[in-house]
Amino acid sequence: MNASPDPVSVRVGLLGCGHVGAALAALVAERRSEVARRRGLDLEVTRIAVRNTAIDRDVPVADDAFTTDAAAVVSDPDVDVVVEVMGGIEPARELVSTALAAGKPVVTANKELLANHGAELYALAEANGVDLLFEAAVAGAIPIMRPLRESLAAEPITRVMGIVNGTTNFILTRMADDGASYGDALAEAQGLGYAERDPTADVEGYDAGAKAAIMATVAFGARVVAGDVYHEGISGITVADIEFAADLKHCIKLLAVAEQTVADDGQAQVGVRVHPTLVPLDHPLASVNGSFNAVFVEGGAAGDLMLYGRGAGGRPTASAVLGDLVDAAGNLARGHGATIGTLERARIAPIDDVVSAYYLNVEVDDRPGVLAAVAAVFGEHGVSIRSMEQEGMGSEARLVFITHGARERDLRATLHDLRSLDAVRAVGSVLRVIGD
Amino acid sequence: MNASPDPVSVRVGLLGCGHVGAALAALVAERRSEVARRRGLDLEVTRIAVRNTAIDRDVPVADDAFTTDAAAVVSDPDVDVVVEVMGGIEPARELVSTALAAGKPVVTANKELLANHGAELYALAEANGVDLLFEAAVAGAIPIMRPLRESLAAEPITRVMGIVNGTTNFILTRMADDGASYGDALAEAQGLGYAERDPTADVEGYDAGAKAAIMATVAFGARVVAGDVYHEGISGITVADIEFAADLKHCIKLLAVAEQTVADDGQAQVGVRVHPTLVPLDHPLASVNGSFNAVFVEGGAAGDLMLYGRGAGGRPTASAVLGDLVDAAGNLARGHGATIGTLERARIAPIDDVVSAYYLNVEVDDRPGVLAAVAAVFGEHGVSIRSMEQEGMGSEARLVFITHGARERDLRATLHDLRSLDAVRAVGSVLRVIGD
Repeated sequence: MNASPDPVSVRVGLLGCGHVGAALAALVAERRSEVARRRGLDLEVTRIAVRNTAIDRDVPVADDAFTTDAAAVVSDPDVDVVVEVMGGIEPARELVSTALAAGKPVVTANKELLANHGAELYALAEANGVDLLFEAAVAGAIPIMRPLRESLAAEPITRVMGIVNGTTNFILTRMADDGASYGDALAEAQGLGYAERDPTADVEGYDAGAKAAIMATVAFGARVVAGDVYHEGISGITVADIEFAADLKHCIKLLAVAEQTVADDGQAQVGVRVHPTLVPLDHPLASVNGSFNAVFVEGGAAGDLMLYGRGAGGRPTASAVLGDLVDAAGNLARGHGATIGTLERARIAPIDDVVSAYYLNVEVDDRPGVLAAVAAVFGEHGVSIRSMEQEGMGSEARLVFITHGARERDLRATLHDLRSLDAVRAVGSVLRVIGD
Repeated sequence: MNASPDPVSVRVGLLGCGHVGAALAALVAERRSEVARRRGLDLEVTRIAVRNTAIDRDVPVADDAFTTDAAAVVSDPDVDVVVEVMGGIEPARELVSTALAAGKPVVTANKELLANHGAELYALAEANGVDLLFEAAVAGAIPIMRPLRESLAAEPITRVMGIVNGTTNFILTRMADDGASYGDALAEAQGLGYAERDPTADVEGYDAGAKAAIMATVAFGARVVAGDVYHEGISGITVADIEFAADLKHCIKLLAVAEQTVADDGQAQVGVRVHPTLVPLDHPLASVNGSFNAVFVEGGAAGDLMLYGRGAGGRPTASAVLGDLVDAAGNLARGHGATIGTLERARIAPIDDVVSAYYLNVEVDDRPGVLAAVAAVFGEHGVSIRSMEQEGMGSEARLVFITHGARERDLRATLHDLRSLDAVRAVGSVLRVIGD
C-alpha cells in the first residue's frame, strides 16, 4: 500500500480468454489505479493467447494484443508475468514450464494441471526463484491456498474438508430443499449452465478430487496427485437418503477430505478422498448451500476454521487470480518469489485403512431377535454402534444405524456378513458421516 | 517448504508470557522440526520478558530466558524477531517501535496498540524494510489479516462485517438459546472466564471497535483509528428483542462494520461502527454461535466471503502468532519484509450519513387510523418501510417495522416525530438490520 509516485510497470500475458480470462482483463483495467496507489504496481494485460482471434471479445485491451500463438506470449520480452486460464493439461503444462524456466512468475487457475503435475512445476518455480501461485484453482474466490500456505504453515493440521464443487452442491441443495430427484436437479443444473452436458467430472467427484489433491499437498507439505484420491460420486443419492439423514439431523454434502493419520507402523500418512457425507445440521459445513463453496480446516492449535465463498464464476475466480497476480508482480518487482518448494511424495493411506463413522440403512424382517442378530455382526467386526432407529413396520421395516469411527475394511466385512443374514432383506445406502 | 539440510536459525524474543505467550512458546517447541523441514527455519524462543520471574511457568525454554527487562529483550543481539503479546499501549508501543527501528521484525497480537498507533508503526516498519504482522490482533486464529492484505489486495471491497468479540457473542447466544436474561448470561460468561469483572470493554463494543478500526485500515488501505468508530453495546438488548427478531426470522449479533461509501461531494469515505444488528437467519453470520468469531467480506468481484473460527484462547491465538512468526522469520532470512506501508488518513463518514435498514418496535393505541398516521411519519422523512407486523392487541399492541436502507439522520428525525404522535405510547427497541 505504498503511495509510490512512480508505480513499477508489470506487463501481463494471458493464456486463455474465456469467462475467467475476460473477467480478469476487465478487473485489471478497473482496479489499475487503485493497485498503483496501494501497491505501487502498474498492471497491464498486454498479450492474450486465444484459439480464435476472430471472435469479438468485449475486453479492455488493444486489438493487436490477441494472438493464437500461446508460446509467443510466454516468450515475449514484453510479458513479465504469465497468467494461465486456458485449462487442461497440454499445452498448459508446456507453456507454464517454459515461463517458469524463463524466470517469469506464473499465476494459474488450472486444478487439473496442478493435481497431476503440480510437484514438477513447484520444483521448477523453486529452482528459478519465481512464484507459481494458484489461489483460483481451488474454491474460486475463497482465499484458501494462501492461508494454508502461509497463515497455517506451522499449524498441526489434522484434516481439511471442503465443499469444493458447486455443481454437486447445487444438485444436493435442490434435492434437499424441494424434493427434486437427482435426475431433475441435474437437468436443472445443466439448464442453468452449472453442469456440463457430460456431468461425469462433477457428479462422480473427479473435479473435487483434483482439488483435494492440491489441498492435501499444500496443507501437509507433501506431494499428493489426483490419482491418489478415492472417489464416490452423488449419482446414487436419493431423496429418501436425504430424508432419512434429515430425520437424524444431518444433511448430505459431497466432501473432499484430506487428512493426516498414522499408519500401523507409526509413520505419517495422508488419506485423500471424495464422497457424499452426512454432515450434522449444527456443523458449519451444513449451512453451505447452492453453488457456494467452503473449506473446513481442523487444526491442532487453531481449532476449527471455515472459509466460505463463491467457488466459481468468471468474476469471483478472476478476483482470486488478481490477488495472486498482485502478489507475484510485487515479488517480481522486489526480486524474489515465494514458492511451495520441492516436495517429497506423500505416503497415501489405502482406503481400507481409513477410519470414518458410517450411516447404514438396512431393510430387515420385522420380528423379535433381528436387532440382536444384526448387532452381533457389527460387534464381530469391531464396529461400534452410536445410534440405531427402526423406521417403518412390517415389510417396510428398516434399521438405520450410525456407527462410531470404523475402518473401511471392517465396515466392508460387516456389510458382507449382514447381506448373508436371513433376516436382512437388503442393505440400502451406506454413507460416511462426519463424527468421531 | 524447502527440505533444506541446514535450516536458518531464527531467535525469538517474547514480550509477555500470559496465556498466549506461554501457548506460543510451547507451540514453537512442538512444531520446531516440522517448521525446519517445511520452511528451512529453526525457530527458538531465547528470551522472554515478564513482570515477575519468580512465577513457575511450564514453558519449554531455558530458566535464564526469563527477565523483567523488556527493553533488554528487544535490544539483545541474540534476538532476531520480537513477538509482543503483553497487551496495552505502553510500554508495548515504545518496545515495538524500538525493535522496528533496529530492523527487527515484530509480530503482535495487540489490537489496542494497532487501533491507536498502527499507522505510525506501519510507517516505521516500512521505513526500516521489516515486517510488522498482526494476524492474531483480530479474530484470533482466523486468517483474516493476511487474506485482506494479500489475497484481496486488489479486490473492490465494499463492506466488512465481523463477529469479533466472543464474550458478547456468547452472551447473545445464551439469551437466544435458553432465554437467559442479559444479566444472567453476563454472570455466566464471567463465571466461565469469558468476561472480565468489569465487562465494559466487551459489552459496550470497545474491543470490537478496535478490531473494526484495524480491519478498515487493512481492507481500505487508509488510516482508521479506534476513536473513529461509532459504538453501541449490547447491555440494552432484552430477551423480548431476541424473540421479536426471531419472529421476523432474524437473530441479533454484535457486529463490527467497516464500509466504503461515497460522500455527498463524491469523495470516498469509510464508515466504521459497532452495534447490535438483526441478521437474517439464512445469512452465514447467523450460524456463528457461542465464542466463535467470523468475518464476512462483501467484494465487488469476489462476491461474499466468510472466514470463521476461534476468536480467542491461548492456543488458537498462538497459532495465528506462529503463522506470522514463520512468515516474518522467512522474510528476514531472505532479507526483505512485507509491510502495510505508509497510509493516508481515511475520511470517516459521520454516523448521521450512514445508511442502514432498521428494526423498530413501536407501542401504539390499538385503533383505526394509527398505522396510517405512523406510516405518514416515515414517509415525511423519506424512510421506506420494507415490512410491518402488528403484534399483540389492545394495550399490548405494537407495530414492528423493518425499513429499507435509510440515513441515520432521517431515521432519528422519524423517531423524534413518532414520539410526538398521540397514538404512539412508546418507541421501544431500534436496531439496525443487515439488509438492502
